[in-house]
Amino acid sequence: MKTDTTVATSRSVKLRDVTLRDGLQDEVPIPTEAKLAVFEALVLAGVSDLELTSFTRPDRVPAMADADLLARTVIASGATPLLWGLVLNTRGAERALEAGIRHLQFVVSVSERHNLENTGRTVDGSLQELERIIELATDADALVEVTLATAFGCPFTGPVDPASVLDVAKRSKDMGVDRFTLADTIGTGAPNEVSALVRGLADELHPLELGIHLHDTRGLAMANAIAALEAGSTRVDAAVGGLGGCPFAPGASGNLPLEDLVHALMAMGRPTGIDLRALLEASVLACGSVGRTPNSHVGIAGPRYSGTPFESGRTI
Amino acid sequence: MKTDTTVATSRSVKLRDVTLRDGLQDEVPIPTEAKLAVFEALVLAGVSDLELTSFTRPDRVPAMADADLLARTVIASGATPLLWGLVLNTRGAERALEAGIRHLQFVVSVSERHNLENTGRTVDGSLQELERIIELATDADALVEVTLATAFGCPFTGPVDPASVLDVAKRSKDMGVDRFTLADTIGTGAPNEVSALVRGLADELHPLELGIHLHDTRGLAMANAIAALEAGSTRVDAAVGGLGGCPFAPGASGNLPLEDLVHALMAMGRPTGIDLRALLEASVLACGSVGRTPNSHVGIAGPRYSGTPFESGRTI
Repeated sequence: MKTDTTVATSRSVKLRDVTLRDGLQDEVPIPTEAKLAVFEALVLAGVSDLELTSFTRPDRVPAMADADLLARTVIASGATPLLWGLVLNTRGAERALEAGIRHLQFVVSVSERHNLENTGRTVDGSLQELERIIELATDADALVEVTLATAFGCPFTGPVDPASVLDVAKRSKDMGVDRFTLADTIGTGAPNEVSALVRGLADELHPLELGIHLHDTRGLAMANAIAALEAGSTRVDAAVGGLGGCPFAPGASGNLPLEDLVHALMAMGRPTGIDLRALLEASVLACGSVGRTPNSHVGIAGPRYSGTPFESGRTI
Repeated sequence: MKTDTTVATSRSVKLRDVTLRDGLQDEVPIPTEAKLAVFEALVLAGVSDLELTSFTRPDRVPAMADADLLARTVIASGATPLLWGLVLNTRGAERALEAGIRHLQFVVSVSERHNLENTGRTVDGSLQELERIIELATDADALVEVTLATAFGCPFTGPVDPASVLDVAKRSKDMGVDRFTLADTIGTGAPNEVSALVRGLADELHPLELGIHLHDTRGLAMANAIAALEAGSTRVDAAVGGLGGCPFAPGASGNLPLEDLVHALMAMGRPTGIDLRALLEASVLACGSVGRTPNSHVGIAGPRYSGTPFESGRTI
């Protein structure tokens, strides 16, 4: 472990911001202009990889109804970050490509039941869509990421067998996917489970990038992120202010807060390319756009030592 | 790491509840009867090791002014848990022993400045007190724990040199202390720092128990707890509902929530001897006694899979 830590401190960590997609998808829709302001604040903070939006049905995800306009506007501005557009099927991929997106994030749930609920398809059906999407992407010179949702647990059927995750990952890899993300969709994973699954998959998927997408539903997102990085994951998804929470469990179900993660990695000597001060401003802006205050620890308490010598001197 | 995890799953973890002392010390004082009710709920949940109170100056810590009465009442009831009474000096130790306490938790801050602010003594001065306290404890057949406060950072002077922590620990050990706790008093430690310090100290202090006491100020308490356990710590302090927050940073500075920790360890296959359902009830009671709702993830969202198939089915 001592050796691991030493090695770890010399490695930078890729972060993908998911504020504009996962962070906002369950919120009341906000104007495209407000999203553009958040996007600019994130880029100013150094975010270079982000979920921009999802090309899903507006009646099912109204907060993403402006996907085409948002994508066209951002691309026309000459923005440099990787701009991922989430798609669940061929129709979504066609829309994304038409809007100029060249990074398609295809989501398939490992849990059959969740995939049916989420996409109306079996896992096999989704993988057939993936095959067609890869053809479209190849023609358009676009990249395809597969996000393996419910990789650690399903809201309908409970625990998910790691062998199923490996199976869907291998089938996707054989089709020619460019990178992967493991998603703890409902925040049920524990660090030893994350570590074991990432380790198994990282070997199998090498040299493709394996990211991790975590929800903090049971307070384990940060520990899981660190476990994933130690086990061979090279990217972590997070949203400023922990946005993305379920309205029925305030403060509990959001994404891993990006500012807490950046702060933690700074403290651990792992560069992220993100400016924490600017990110904290982006967090206030993003959360404010949906009437919230940042639900992050560093957003409330500030970075460590920043308050010294004014920080409250507790007893122990 | 794979091997570590396998080994870890076979080991139980000791937990010390710190609700009644650290959790309540900065709150408006509550009646002794209310504390007794919380104590009983904690014991009912399986808590077997706890900070009961602190024998400090009532003008400085009014919420602990009933220390003598609380200790006498609990001891008279024939309670079985280890009952730790926090002391900063000989006078406190005398009071604790007179009240029947046989587990003295002596706190010294590794940071000179914090120790002066907290106790009015230099570190050397505190260690002189410790020498006298150990004599008193020996005469009374009592145990002495040393809690090394500000072990990862000081609110006044910033980073703390691990060599200073080791020095104070070794000097204490040479006096004949029974166990140790490393305290991240203001929540500045990062997992690699926790891991390195625990590893270094665990070797030095072997075979004495080395616990870890964490505040979640920057969202790292859970990750730090897991890092400490992997590095050789055998006990973790925590408070139900994350009580112990600084009133000026709501939701950010509290203790590691005990129910989140118990849930995480259950998920990781590590027994704690605590019943989570009963603990969640104790958390509601304890937080309610100071007009709060539990600030824990599991307190809000419930244990993993508990809501299946009713848990909200998020998109990814």
